[in-house]
Amino acid sequence: MIYFDNAATSLPKPPTVGNAVLAAINTFGGAGRGGHPASLAAARCIFQARKAVAELLGASIDQTAFTANATESLNIAISGLLTREDHVITTALEHNSVLRPLYKLRSQGMGLSIISIDQKGNLDYDGFRRSLRPNSKAVVCTHASNLTGTLTNLDFIANFCKENGLLLIVDASQTAGVYPINVDKLGIDVLCFTGHKGLLGPQGTGGLCIRKGLAVMPLKVGGSGLHSYSETHPAAMPEALEAGTANAHGIAGLLAGVEYIFGMGMDTIRNRELELTKLFRQGISAISGIRVYGDPDMPHAPIVTLNIGSMDSGAVGDRLENLYNICVRTGAHCAPLAHLALGTQEQGAVRFSFSSFNTEEEILTGIRAVAEIAAEWEQG
Amino acid sequence: MIYFDNAATSLPKPPTVGNAVLAAINTFGGAGRGGHPASLAAARCIFQARKAVAELLGASIDQTAFTANATESLNIAISGLLTREDHVITTALEHNSVLRPLYKLRSQGMGLSIISIDQKGNLDYDGFRRSLRPNSKAVVCTHASNLTGTLTNLDFIANFCKENGLLLIVDASQTAGVYPINVDKLGIDVLCFTGHKGLLGPQGTGGLCIRKGLAVMPLKVGGSGLHSYSETHPAAMPEALEAGTANAHGIAGLLAGVEYIFGMGMDTIRNRELELTKLFRQGISAISGIRVYGDPDMPHAPIVTLNIGSMDSGAVGDRLENLYNICVRTGAHCAPLAHLALGTQEQGAVRFSFSSFNTEEEILTGIRAVAEIAAEWEQG
Repeated sequence: MIYFDNAATSLPKPPTVGNAVLAAINTFGGAGRGGHPASLAAARCIFQARKAVAELLGASIDQTAFTANATESLNIAISGLLTREDHVITTALEHNSVLRPLYKLRSQGMGLSIISIDQKGNLDYDGFRRSLRPNSKAVVCTHASNLTGTLTNLDFIANFCKENGLLLIVDASQTAGVYPINVDKLGIDVLCFTGHKGLLGPQGTGGLCIRKGLAVMPLKVGGSGLHSYSETHPAAMPEALEAGTANAHGIAGLLAGVEYIFGMGMDTIRNRELELTKLFRQGISAISGIRVYGDPDMPHAPIVTLNIGSMDSGAVGDRLENLYNICVRTGAHCAPLAHLALGTQEQGAVRFSFSSFNTEEEILTGIRAVAEIAAEWEQG
Repeated sequence: MIYFDNAATSLPKPPTVGNAVLAAINTFGGAGRGGHPASLAAARCIFQARKAVAELLGASIDQTAFTANATESLNIAISGLLTREDHVITTALEHNSVLRPLYKLRSQGMGLSIISIDQKGNLDYDGFRRSLRPNSKAVVCTHASNLTGTLTNLDFIANFCKENGLLLIVDASQTAGVYPINVDKLGIDVLCFTGHKGLLGPQGTGGLCIRKGLAVMPLKVGGSGLHSYSETHPAAMPEALEAGTANAHGIAGLLAGVEYIFGMGMDTIRNRELELTKLFRQGISAISGIRVYGDPDMPHAPIVTLNIGSMDSGAVGDRLENLYNICVRTGAHCAPLAHLALGTQEQGAVRFSFSSFNTEEEILTGIRAVAEIAAEWEQG
């Protein structure tokens, strides 16, 4: 199997990830729910993971909370900071995990401006200033499109937020673990990440890093292992956003994933992924009848998204799988506004997303597969 | 290490649990996020787990949604069904995962009655009828106290709810996987469960079973792998309550845990646990200077909670761990009202909670340990 669907979930993981989870399942008690060794082992592992993730993302340890996935992080950030009285700016690149929580607030009265993208998927950066209103409260935006891979200019957006006193909430689902992000230096108010993509951890992990001093209303309240007799959930981070028994088993794997990144070097991993992306993009550039989305001249994540003629993207995916054993993502990618802008809402799109574990040989097979399916389509 | 903290998280798990998670981490794509084999393997595993859990709990497959833990399930049920206009009945046995979401709604105007317990921890069942108000909407209650282990009479409460047109939301954290529960037959509207206790799965898993036809407003919205172009999250269960990438890795372990239960037989597991509990309870009954909480004549989960004289529960736990390598839970147990009723809010309590993997020899060591610590305390 050739796996080119790393933007959905990374596969394979470093072998240490599965082994760490296995060891955790066979030895951990409940973290923060007892003072015995099994419980302390879980708590220590979570602390180590919190430290590692915070260091990787340039955030404070005690301002980094774990969640089940980026969707949960985004729901916490959006519903915990914004109200129906606010106006919010977001972008047409966003995933439904950003759009739907915002639409929900908009249905209650919140104002929402959506920065448009051009046919190449590039944001209209001038739109940010034009969208400002007196009650503008925040920008919520992705660090990279999950459809085209194009990175947003976080320096520009962070600066815009600073100048206008807006909160900045960033969805780093496609970049955390691969692209350098420094939450503190950039002045990001909330960074939402998932554990099972670039951070190479298991599914069921994710989190958010929150600027010191910013209070985010929790989505869930309950047991915290702290202040049992208080009627309200603890307000101190990170417990404030971590009600219930933590997924210490999964977090053990996340720690192993982040340690792998530290060991290999994030730059090495990213450069490797970008080399493979470039090889693929160059290889398919000569194939007639295909359309590649996104702007190759802009900084981008290791994603190449394309269509072959007017062929349904799902049919391309089926051929890739059946004839070449290649796994890609097809159809709609939970990024409806980006599909509309690119004109792919009916056809969907075929997304190839690479990891540093992919080989040149796999890339060449991928290129040959696209060429053959395109030739067949042109002849057919 | 002798592990008597299974009411916090069960340990060990059946070996198949860790192995299933390891295999999932090394082979699964994102469930519902693609049609390739890695993605389908994840989706199929989630379906199998949903089927197994629903069968075990007497619920419908497509009305069973997975969450990160029971706390999330309870927050979904409580915030997704109740409003500030309602009146709700709960009990003094509840965990903070029930109480805090209810207190949050109470602070917004919701009425809340709390059924009291006596010094043995038994509920005042007459109190349910006395608490009724014209706007009573629901009873939210645990199936077993996490402090004393005493089971609540779900037949009585379900009947009370039926007679009075109330919703019944049950916290089965301490019972799912060990005690027979039939959601459909009992007429439970929402059953909340955790995966990492009696169901023997990994941390980071849990869920809720919802009566057909009952719409629960989701806590989180976002990507669903379905209906990408809709501005609202899908309303159909189970996707309605499962925004974001599922924890398919953890759910693979949960499936293995439930399959273990089916293989051994839930009755066999429960009888084994109750035998060990009885052995422990009988063994400590002759020890002078200890106080055991709860009512041994009532149906109960495999939990025995005690104190030695006026000795701080944490100090007892330290001695158990340091001298006997025994892991128990001490201090406050996130069940503040139960501690108040038992008079243990200062001292806390030492909770022994058993699993079918414990041995008679371990129980005897536990008895000896309690006897020696009690004797030392009486002499000291």
